[in-house]
Amino acid sequence: MHILTIGAAGMLGRKVTQRLVDDEGLGGQKIDAMTLVDVVAPDAPAGFAGKTTTLAIDLSAPGTAAQLIATRPDVIFHFAAIVSGEAEADFEKGYRINLDGTRDLFEAIRLAHVADGYFPRVVFASSIAVVGAPLPFPIPDDFHTTPLTSYGTQKAISELLLADYTRHGFFDGIGIRLPTLCIRPGTPNKAASGFFSNILREPLVGKPAVLPVPDTIRHWHTSPRSAVGFMIHAATMDLAALGPRRNLSMPGLSATVAEQIEALRRVAGDDAVALIRREPDPAIIRMCEGWAPGFEATRARALGFTAEDSFDAIIRAHIEDELGGAP
Amino acid sequence: MHILTIGAAGMLGRKVTQRLVDDEGLGGQKIDAMTLVDVVAPDAPAGFAGKTTTLAIDLSAPGTAAQLIATRPDVIFHFAAIVSGEAEADFEKGYRINLDGTRDLFEAIRLAHVADGYFPRVVFASSIAVVGAPLPFPIPDDFHTTPLTSYGTQKAISELLLADYTRHGFFDGIGIRLPTLCIRPGTPNKAASGFFSNILREPLVGKPAVLPVPDTIRHWHTSPRSAVGFMIHAATMDLAALGPRRNLSMPGLSATVAEQIEALRRVAGDDAVALIRREPDPAIIRMCEGWAPGFEATRARALGFTAEDSFDAIIRAHIEDELGGAP
Repeated sequence: MHILTIGAAGMLGRKVTQRLVDDEGLGGQKIDAMTLVDVVAPDAPAGFAGKTTTLAIDLSAPGTAAQLIATRPDVIFHFAAIVSGEAEADFEKGYRINLDGTRDLFEAIRLAHVADGYFPRVVFASSIAVVGAPLPFPIPDDFHTTPLTSYGTQKAISELLLADYTRHGFFDGIGIRLPTLCIRPGTPNKAASGFFSNILREPLVGKPAVLPVPDTIRHWHTSPRSAVGFMIHAATMDLAALGPRRNLSMPGLSATVAEQIEALRRVAGDDAVALIRREPDPAIIRMCEGWAPGFEATRARALGFTAEDSFDAIIRAHIEDELGGAP
Repeated sequence: MHILTIGAAGMLGRKVTQRLVDDEGLGGQKIDAMTLVDVVAPDAPAGFAGKTTTLAIDLSAPGTAAQLIATRPDVIFHFAAIVSGEAEADFEKGYRINLDGTRDLFEAIRLAHVADGYFPRVVFASSIAVVGAPLPFPIPDDFHTTPLTSYGTQKAISELLLADYTRHGFFDGIGIRLPTLCIRPGTPNKAASGFFSNILREPLVGKPAVLPVPDTIRHWHTSPRSAVGFMIHAATMDLAALGPRRNLSMPGLSATVAEQIEALRRVAGDDAVALIRREPDPAIIRMCEGWAPGFEATRARALGFTAEDSFDAIIRAHIEDELGGAP
């Protein structure tokens, strides 16, 4: 079995790759080869017995998608995207990478299908950014996609393309609408949503963190561990059960910032909570009032996708996966 | 005022053009020039005092969109598309015309906006094909777009692009999701949905017509006259009221085939109804069981869009507009 991961240098790409190595296969099949690509060449995973190819690519450059498909990977994880803030600020680059790059990939697969019947599984990382305020709570599976960012627009368009290419039989595709991933490992970043992770990750290691929004803000979260689980399940499940509706809102946990903080208190104590400094930021408050408070995710749950059911569990997953089991 | 109509040779394009000529303007403003384009050069309308330019174009050919925008039309009606059956059968052509053609147009406007602040009104003809079965009845305004045709996919993607380009301030756009137009003038065509019009239009002039589906099939209709009204209203109303959700399901009439036939009986008598011959066609039955039974269209009605509230009115509109007032 040959796996191609596009966007393999990102957090999700690295974690999915490591999970494949740890599992020594995918869906009971041995993995012979992994091709890991991103705008910078990803690291080869430690401990993989098969062949690893790492490449630095620009997916939207002419010929790149065809080159990636030339070796006919069996499963393609497509996680590559420029992030929301950059896609909003650089309109042309956002459409070039997030839309044209995805369409080029789908087209390369289609042409390979037409040439020799090639029919891979395609697992696409979509986003809750496909919906836009005003939003009900919880958001039903059949709620319309009216994104309020170019990033969300590009993800919503990619979802439509994925469903249509799948319906025509060019590949077997599934789109995974990821909740906000929390707790993101690493260092605080400039993403407007970064505080959801910062206010937990930093105090867990004795560092201060800034909370720029009121405690009452409600949002939709899942752990990186669950996100990896979504991708593995998406890559191995029987997709016939989805019918033509190939894009699924994933399960997650709807929680207010206050609920996040109380979970931190239960797991790590008052001293950890005392490291959170409140510095309201009107720009971030305005943005996050438009973010998704939570989804029903009825279909995804029925199809076997699972996520944490408490913020305590999300914090414990971070402690186990990133901190060696103890804060 | 300068009007550009893309797809001006089609039924809707011709009727909107004639309405503009009859009204001697748009929204109280005099029309100085009309540019009418299509894959074949449209006829110049009779009785127009301003300048008419007619062009045969391929919207998706390099440079075409920029050429159309070079004269900076104030209002752009974008009706051009290849139809559902052709877009399904010829995958590449469908995407080239219905998606790339639309995107090229939007891009040409954006580049003109960046160059000199150009900011036209763009009225886009979308379709109820953006939704796909299973469907509730009535379909709410916030129902998701899960099209079951490439045509519907291309319209749904164009809607997303229109909303995003509008949100960025590149133009002032509105997408109009048209119901099935009934009664279509002309001769019976090969469109799978043609029978909805055939079983009324042909008996009204004493000719036989074939009904390939059961009387119980329910669908969503409006007259060509109402569709023209939608486009004029869309071109003249204050779009600020729409906020960022720029694509609207239009009002229409939800009716079964049986209700259509009873309306024909009331308007034209038993002899007309007797001209309808039942010839069930399993392929057409299968297709139309997936078509939209009707929409709430709450937002569009609140924004002043109006349509017929009975099939009698739809038939009478056809008699007045196409048959000189008498069957």
